[in-house]
Amino acid sequence: MLHTPPASLLLLQLLNLTGIFVFAISGAMMGVRKGFDLFGVIVLAVVTAVSGGIMRDVLIGAIPPESIAHWHGVALAVIAGLLGFRSHRLIERLNHPVLFFDAAGLGVFAASGTQKALEFWLNPFMAAVLGMISGVGGGMVRDILAAQIPVVLRSEIYASAALIGALIVVVGAHFGLPPIETTLAGAGLTFFLRMMAIYRHWTLPIAHTNRDH
Amino acid sequence: MLHTPPASLLLLQLLNLTGIFVFAISGAMMGVRKGFDLFGVIVLAVVTAVSGGIMRDVLIGAIPPESIAHWHGVALAVIAGLLGFRSHRLIERLNHPVLFFDAAGLGVFAASGTQKALEFWLNPFMAAVLGMISGVGGGMVRDILAAQIPVVLRSEIYASAALIGALIVVVGAHFGLPPIETTLAGAGLTFFLRMMAIYRHWTLPIAHTNRDH
Amino acid sequence: MLHTPPASLLLLQLLNLTGIFVFAISGAMMGVRKGFDLFGVIVLAVVTAVSGGIMRDVLIGAIPPESIAHWHGVALAVIAGLLGFRSHRLIERLNHPVLFFDAAGLGVFAASGTQKALEFWLNPFMAAVLGMISGVGGGMVRDILAAQIPVVLRSEIYASAALIGALIVVVGAHFGLPPIETTLAGAGLTFFLRMMAIYRHWTLPIAHTNRDH
Repeated sequence: MLHTPPASLLLLQLLNLTGIFVFAISGAMMGVRKGFDLFGVIVLAVVTAVSGGIMRDVLIGAIPPESIAHWHGVALAVIAGLLGFRSHRLIERLNHPVLFFDAAGLGVFAASGTQKALEFWLNPFMAAVLGMISGVGGGMVRDILAAQIPVVLRSEIYASAALIGALIVVVGAHFGLPPIETTLAGAGLTFFLRMMAIYRHWTLPIAHTNRDH
Repeated sequence: MLHTPPASLLLLQLLNLTGIFVFAISGAMMGVRKGFDLFGVIVLAVVTAVSGGIMRDVLIGAIPPESIAHWHGVALAVIAGLLGFRSHRLIERLNHPVLFFDAAGLGVFAASGTQKALEFWLNPFMAAVLGMISGVGGGMVRDILAAQIPVVLRSEIYASAALIGALIVVVGAHFGLPPIETTLAGAGLTFFLRMMAIYRHWTLPIAHTNRDH
Repeated sequence: MLHTPPASLLLLQLLNLTGIFVFAISGAMMGVRKGFDLFGVIVLAVVTAVSGGIMRDVLIGAIPPESIAHWHGVALAVIAGLLGFRSHRLIERLNHPVLFFDAAGLGVFAASGTQKALEFWLNPFMAAVLGMISGVGGGMVRDILAAQIPVVLRSEIYASAALIGALIVVVGAHFGLPPIETTLAGAGLTFFLRMMAIYRHWTLPIAHTNRDH
C-alpha cells in the first residue's frame, strides 16, 4: 500500500464516511416522515447506514462485521440521525444535494464493498454482486422497516448503477490495476450513471401488465 | 456415495436446479406485477431463489453460503428472471404448471436443506426446522420486499408440508437409510401434501376472531 | 461463578424463559389477528421469540446461534404459540399482564444479550447496541412479517429503555461488578422505564412535519 498516493486513500476514506452520513440522513428523513420518535429516527438512521455493509460481511464471513467491530460508523450515523431529526425541514429543501450525496454514497459503498469481497474470496462475478448488496442493502432495509416496497427495486437505475461500478472494480483487479484508483473509478461510474438517471430520467424497461401497485 | 444409484443423485440435482428456477420465476412474476423495472425484476427473482438457502447456511455456519460461493445458482436465477420478465403473460396462463413446479421446489429445498443441516450439526428437530427455512425462506423474503404479508404464513398447508418432508429426512437419517433416497422421499411427501392442499383445498384451522387483514 | 448466589442465577434463567414465552405469545396474537392458520401462528410465535437472539449471535459470530443449537427455546415458543392460538380471546382480555411480561422479556433479553456480547468481544458501546438488538429484534421481525411498521420504532420508549438497561450491564462490567446482579439490575431498569412509558405515557419527542403515516 506504500506506493499508493495518500491523497487517493484519503479521498476514499472521506467518501466512505460521506456514504455512511448520507445514508443515515436518508434513514432519518424517512423516520421523520413516518412519525417515529427521536430514538426511532436515530435507530432507522443507523440501520440504513450500516445494513448493506453488515449483509456483505455476514455473507463473506467477516465476523464481527466492520460496523459492529468498530463504533465509529454507528457514532457517525447517530450524529447524522440527530441532525436529520432536528433539521428535516432544511434538508427537505436541499433535496438535490441529498440525491447528490446519496449517489456518491452508493458508488463508494458498491465499489469498496466489491474490493472487500475480492479480498475475502475470489469469484469475480459474486464479488460484484456483494458490492451491489453493500450499496443497496441499507436502503432496502430502511424501506422494509417503513413498510414500503424498496425504492431500489422499483425506480430508476439504482441497483444496476451499483452493479456496473462494482464490475469496474472486478475488471480492474483482474488486470492488476491499483485498487484504490480502480475503486474510485468504479464509484465514479456508479455516481455518474445514478445522476444521469435522475437528471435525464434514464430508465430501464418495465413489463406491460395490469399492475396492482 | 459410490453405492448410491447415479440416477437418484442426478434426479436430486435436477430437482434442485428446478427449485431455483421456479422460485426465481415466482419472484420475477411478483416483480412484474408490482411494476418493477427489468433490473428490479431480476434482483427479486435472484433473492427469491437463494434467500432460503442463504438463511440456512448462515445459521449453520456454512460460510460463504453455497449460492454466494458458486455463481451457478445466481446465474440460473438471472436467466429465469429474464424469462419471467419477457414471458409473464404466458406464465400467468400457465398458473397450474407454476404451482406444480413451486411445490416441487419446496419439497426439494426442504429435504436437501435438512440433509445439509444434519451434516453440519446433529440435533434432528432443529435440522428439520432449518430444512423448512430453506424451503420457505425465499418466498418470505419475496413477499416482504413486495410489502405483503408472506403467503407462506397465511395460506394453505405450505410451511407445514415442508416441515413434514424435512422430518422424513431426519427419521431416515436416524435409521441409517441411504440419504439420497430419503431426501427424494421427503421431497415427494412435501410435494404431495402441497398439491393436495391446492387441489383438495386442505387447510389448517384458523382462530375465530375479528381480524383486521 | 461459584460465588454467585444460586437464587440470582435461577431468577435470570427463569426470566429468560419468561422472555421467550411472552415474545412468542405476542407473535401468536399478531398471527391470529392477521388470520394466519395454526401453523403460521406457531411460525410467527417462534420467529418473534428467537429473532433478536439470532441476530445478536450471527453478528458476534456465535454460530450456530443459541436457539438453533438447542431445541428448548423453539419448543417453548411452539407451546406458547399453541396457547396463543387457543386462548387468544382470554389473552386479549389480559392486555395489561401481557404488556407486563413483554416489558420483563425486553429487559432480560437486552441485559443478558449485552452480557453475551461482552463475553465475545469487548467494545462496550457496541455490546450495548447488540443487547438492544437482542431485546427489540424479535418484535421488529414480527411486525415486518405482518407488513406493519415496527411498533418498536414508532411508539413510546421501547428501544431506548432496552439501550439504557444494556448500558447498566456495560458500566457494571467496566467496574468489575458481579455479572448476574448487574444483569438483573439492567433488566430491572429497562422493565421500570418501559412500564413508566406505558402507565405514565412517557414519550420521546417527535419531529413536527406533515407525516404520511
